[in-house]
Amino acid sequence: MTVHFSHIHIIGCGLIGSSIARAVTTFELADRLSIADQSDDVVKIAKTINLAREVETDFTLGAKDADLIILATPPGTMQAVTEAIMPVMKSGAILTDVGSVKTSIINQLAPHIRDDIEFVPAHPIAGTENSGPSAGFATLFEQRWCILTPEDPERKAVEKVKRFWEAMGSEVAVMDAARHDFVLATTSHVPHLIAYTLVGTAMDMETVTRNEVVKFSAGGFRDFTRIAASDPVMWRDVFMQNKDSVLEIVDRFIEDLSAIKRAIRWDKDEVLLEHFSKTRDIRRRIVDAGQDSDEPNFGRNTLDD
Amino acid sequence: MTVHFSHIHIIGCGLIGSSIARAVTTFELADRLSIADQSDDVVKIAKTINLAREVETDFTLGAKDADLIILATPPGTMQAVTEAIMPVMKSGAILTDVGSVKTSIINQLAPHIRDDIEFVPAHPIAGTENSGPSAGFATLFEQRWCILTPEDPERKAVEKVKRFWEAMGSEVAVMDAARHDFVLATTSHVPHLIAYTLVGTAMDMETVTRNEVVKFSAGGFRDFTRIAASDPVMWRDVFMQNKDSVLEIVDRFIEDLSAIKRAIRWDKDEVLLEHFSKTRDIRRRIVDAGQDSDEPNFGRNTLDD
Repeated sequence: MTVHFSHIHIIGCGLIGSSIARAVTTFELADRLSIADQSDDVVKIAKTINLAREVETDFTLGAKDADLIILATPPGTMQAVTEAIMPVMKSGAILTDVGSVKTSIINQLAPHIRDDIEFVPAHPIAGTENSGPSAGFATLFEQRWCILTPEDPERKAVEKVKRFWEAMGSEVAVMDAARHDFVLATTSHVPHLIAYTLVGTAMDMETVTRNEVVKFSAGGFRDFTRIAASDPVMWRDVFMQNKDSVLEIVDRFIEDLSAIKRAIRWDKDEVLLEHFSKTRDIRRRIVDAGQDSDEPNFGRNTLDD
Repeated sequence: MTVHFSHIHIIGCGLIGSSIARAVTTFELADRLSIADQSDDVVKIAKTINLAREVETDFTLGAKDADLIILATPPGTMQAVTEAIMPVMKSGAILTDVGSVKTSIINQLAPHIRDDIEFVPAHPIAGTENSGPSAGFATLFEQRWCILTPEDPERKAVEKVKRFWEAMGSEVAVMDAARHDFVLATTSHVPHLIAYTLVGTAMDMETVTRNEVVKFSAGGFRDFTRIAASDPVMWRDVFMQNKDSVLEIVDRFIEDLSAIKRAIRWDKDEVLLEHFSKTRDIRRRIVDAGQDSDEPNFGRNTLDD
């Protein structure tokens, strides 16, 4: 089943927004594509690299005739954007987003959404550590999951958004918003928080120079720095807006880390060995599920540089 | 300056030992190469894939005539191996190791090493998440650092071991053993401990299924699972033997994580943003230093699978 829109309007042209723009063009998902971003610089770059014929700083312009509007701005700005475009939106149009948190976004947006607008919250589980319009690419969503958290999964608009993501190569799951937030806190938000924290800890060590950290990073640390290079504004918003789930899982993690620490301090070899042996299995399953490369070191090749 | 040995004997044929064996052959670093591993299975595999002409379970056999003996067993077994080979070793031969911790290995081995043997402790900062003789490859050490921690850096044997690692493509740093242990606790040991812990926390969550963890791992979690798939026995030994440095850095990390947690709980946006912004810089420096790929997502390509 193919999907096609007469006019898609993307608001926010960072890694995700610009990747969607490229995919819309590549897979011919709309007759007309317009992009808006509040930053003059971003608009300039988006025009230079030809992301769409219409690129504006005023996001209400393209919102007027669109039958699909995609919010791809940081979560903290989505409410203001929604309030601004609501008066001009076409009746029956679909509003969707790509935010990494769902409950708080829904709570903030829903009161402002007109009854004749279809709202389908969405979250593509895809990304890289790079940000901005030049970082995007059309295949970013291929073989990645996209989670929809609509109030009523039976609406026609949900099916349309589902097919839209499938057309870009994603698999789509429909889920309760609260459950999404807890699952993603586990698989994404807390891993990012921990990576940001550990890289900070290493940078602040008085007794280890930053040069040493850089030189000897191949021991494992470099993997954390990739995650900790992700967009700071976006991630600040994610942690603030998924506060309860993030704090709950961080607490469990600290509890587990304290237990491991205790095992090291008291020479409980068998506790450590048992723990370190069981975590191998999950890696195998992720590789088998096509969610990661099975090449050693992710197949990264630094030798070509 | 080239380096050449008449007989290199490698004890322990896992990822590192087998990679050295391949590199010795590829770069023609010895007239004769022998390998020993206590496991019959490992010996069988090593013979099948032709790692060396001489592969034995008895590690004293090849130790007799070797002018370079490399200990590549888990750190916890190195003392017993050293005691066993000491009586048969040739006078003037060099004994080196590849252990990820240095002070405790030196303390355990030194009392058993004869005065006419040269001991040069070493640690190549290289590896992958895979283990065993088939996981190795000759270029594993290329563009990676190898740290030597000899008691007397002026000895001729140190220069020979340095050239040996350079011949396999490494850059070599000479460092105090205690400093090595603290620096590596930061760039390698604690990152591994945290990855093992977080993957365990996610697996034990009653409210998130393992299927969900696997499906939605592309949000960041999958990076942690790669590290947490590393050899459990080796890492147990590393944490036990570098206890003080590891516990000190874990404590600082927990302190930092608690501060970040508090900032989230009390809506201190600016604290979070400042923290998340500064960690980007270190990534750039690691990429510039040739210690990681600058491709997004490490250039991993799961789409070919």
